[in-house]
Amino acid sequence: MSDFIETKSKFHLPEGIVYLDGNSLGPLPKTAQNIVQNTIFNEWGEMLVTGWNKAGWMDQPNIVGNKIARLIGAAADTITVGDTLSIKVFQALASAASYQTNKKVFLSDYNNFPSDIYAAQGLVNMLQANHELKIVSTEKLIENIDENVAAVFFTEVDYRTGRRYDADKIIKAAKKNGSLVILDLAHSAGAIDTNLTELDVDLAVGCTYKYLNGGPGSPAFIYVNPNLINSLEPCLSGWLGHDKPFDFSLKYTPASGIDRMRVGTPPVIALAALEASLDIWETVDISDVRERSIQLTDQFIKGVEQNCPKLQLITPRTPENRGSQVSFSFENGYAAMQACIERGVIGDFRAPNVMRFGFTPLFIDSQDVEKAIDTLAEIMSKDLWNNQKFQKRKKVT
Amino acid sequence: MSDFIETKSKFHLPEGIVYLDGNSLGPLPKTAQNIVQNTIFNEWGEMLVTGWNKAGWMDQPNIVGNKIARLIGAAADTITVGDTLSIKVFQALASAASYQTNKKVFLSDYNNFPSDIYAAQGLVNMLQANHELKIVSTEKLIENIDENVAAVFFTEVDYRTGRRYDADKIIKAAKKNGSLVILDLAHSAGAIDTNLTELDVDLAVGCTYKYLNGGPGSPAFIYVNPNLINSLEPCLSGWLGHDKPFDFSLKYTPASGIDRMRVGTPPVIALAALEASLDIWETVDISDVRERSIQLTDQFIKGVEQNCPKLQLITPRTPENRGSQVSFSFENGYAAMQACIERGVIGDFRAPNVMRFGFTPLFIDSQDVEKAIDTLAEIMSKDLWNNQKFQKRKKVT
Repeated sequence: MSDFIETKSKFHLPEGIVYLDGNSLGPLPKTAQNIVQNTIFNEWGEMLVTGWNKAGWMDQPNIVGNKIARLIGAAADTITVGDTLSIKVFQALASAASYQTNKKVFLSDYNNFPSDIYAAQGLVNMLQANHELKIVSTEKLIENIDENVAAVFFTEVDYRTGRRYDADKIIKAAKKNGSLVILDLAHSAGAIDTNLTELDVDLAVGCTYKYLNGGPGSPAFIYVNPNLINSLEPCLSGWLGHDKPFDFSLKYTPASGIDRMRVGTPPVIALAALEASLDIWETVDISDVRERSIQLTDQFIKGVEQNCPKLQLITPRTPENRGSQVSFSFENGYAAMQACIERGVIGDFRAPNVMRFGFTPLFIDSQDVEKAIDTLAEIMSKDLWNNQKFQKRKKVT
Repeated sequence: MSDFIETKSKFHLPEGIVYLDGNSLGPLPKTAQNIVQNTIFNEWGEMLVTGWNKAGWMDQPNIVGNKIARLIGAAADTITVGDTLSIKVFQALASAASYQTNKKVFLSDYNNFPSDIYAAQGLVNMLQANHELKIVSTEKLIENIDENVAAVFFTEVDYRTGRRYDADKIIKAAKKNGSLVILDLAHSAGAIDTNLTELDVDLAVGCTYKYLNGGPGSPAFIYVNPNLINSLEPCLSGWLGHDKPFDFSLKYTPASGIDRMRVGTPPVIALAALEASLDIWETVDISDVRERSIQLTDQFIKGVEQNCPKLQLITPRTPENRGSQVSFSFENGYAAMQACIERGVIGDFRAPNVMRFGFTPLFIDSQDVEKAIDTLAEIMSKDLWNNQKFQKRKKVT
């Protein structure tokens, strides 16, 4: 297994910081500046409009998609990159609705990320015609999959608790009922060893600014099972999803394969920044990342539980059942996290009481984990969170 | 009126090039590299996740929206930036459909940009329930606006001919019938003196990589009339369109005002590049730009007509009826344009026979126009397009 010393050296990490928030926004790959500069100056600046062909901008969404594919067990040419995760969730749901002519229920769980639910609410309001959004507890997802369910959609790893759901079991139950499954990989891609091919999932979506380190607001991706793609309407029918975009025909004909899920013009500069990170990802094997992630999260759980009895672990203790984050509940969690951040250990807080720490083996090592444990231990043992300045509730990102 | 010498000096224009394709992809503002570097290194690199608040990333879409607003006569806080134009067209159409409970027809014209039509086709297929897309000739748009029309959508300036439609007349006819109007400003924003407030249009959308010089794949924008916005469902209901995104509520409640049209995470790096260009736009008045654009296009039309009798003007001769581009039809237009590009005069070609030249006063002056005329005259008088190497039809961007 890689010791990840090499990969750590490839990120810019501010002096003295232990960055345990790569599950919210990954850090800057050192090469990103040069790669983006090259795109800006040598491509945009010098090639101008000819960059679309000469610099290969037009193919970038699929080239980048293929780099992501190997991290989530997807076959080549099953992923395209673009838009935001909210848009890709909407597109996946709309495509599923259009495919399922006789099934009208979208099923999800209370632990899904809220904006996935918002996308579905927006879609159901638009479609009317008997469509329905049903939200149940995660435990009851499977028993609620029946012949009326057009699509089950859920996030594989819970953004608050870090719990990893048994996607395989849910997908199998859905298949029995002819329901499609849309898997949100926001906290999976680059974090755990999800294998889309083995899961045989229908659709998956994800973002690239978390564990994939693509930068603030970097584009999303969508995966469609190659057995399904040519039967699926893209619904968000855009210029670059057309079979022959440069014919400028007034009739939309979807491209064959994953290209049909493309919509508008690719975000060239953002894709360049993302490529900087994916170059680092090319050097590692996701199974090694997963193994190291389990070591780091085990170390953190053990250390915090020994030193901080007031913190309640809400992440599953069994490695198979968690992603690459560890969360503790604590009634003064917001203030405690502020105290933590002030001491250079950056995690984040999620209402109402969750202190969240992400472990990203590409740049976090066991010394970092140790420092984080020590810092938390100090804060908790001395009640440092109990300081006026940490109590004021601010807007949390 | 500004002589635009100052603004021209602010763009990187490759040596010896006359760039008449800023209506497809605007050139690089010289400050873009530094501004993007600052965002990448000092914000993403150093602030990490705290950049969302500290660097103001979260507010960027509206700050940038307000900078665009003054160029198209929109009031403050009526524009937000994000996604692609295809997505914003879809969102505008979907919102209009949801607003118009009893009107089911989307009306557009054959001269609209194809992907606007694709967005509507995708939406109509999704909605089913008696919705219909009706496409007529531009001349017949107004007579086809009746009580069944939910929304009329058209592009103010035709992407091939450069013809500017009488938006005011169409909007007035639509209002009489209670139809909403969605105006596509792809070839208006930064090109002509469209005034959304005076037009009292309902919705408008546009892209920023053409005349606004935001860079390849820079984000789109959407405008909603302030009298309408709070009655409009955003349909693409995303996290950042929520009234309180950081409450992580499972119920979508749209933000008040233009914020509800936001969807996912803002494309921070792309927005930084766009800001570089908008800083230049801040220094000019759009009425001066329009005046200069008319001078330049008049000069070009006159010069080409005098020197190139084989080229047929398809752009209206009356300045009020055109945008900031001039197009000629010529059966060997593809080859002639290739010859032109080889000589450093970059325009583009649109099937079947359109040679298109964009005039962007921020960086094109009358000497450039003269050079373009001379180059075209040489090509046409010596039949230089009749060279084997220019005949091969390639993929055109």
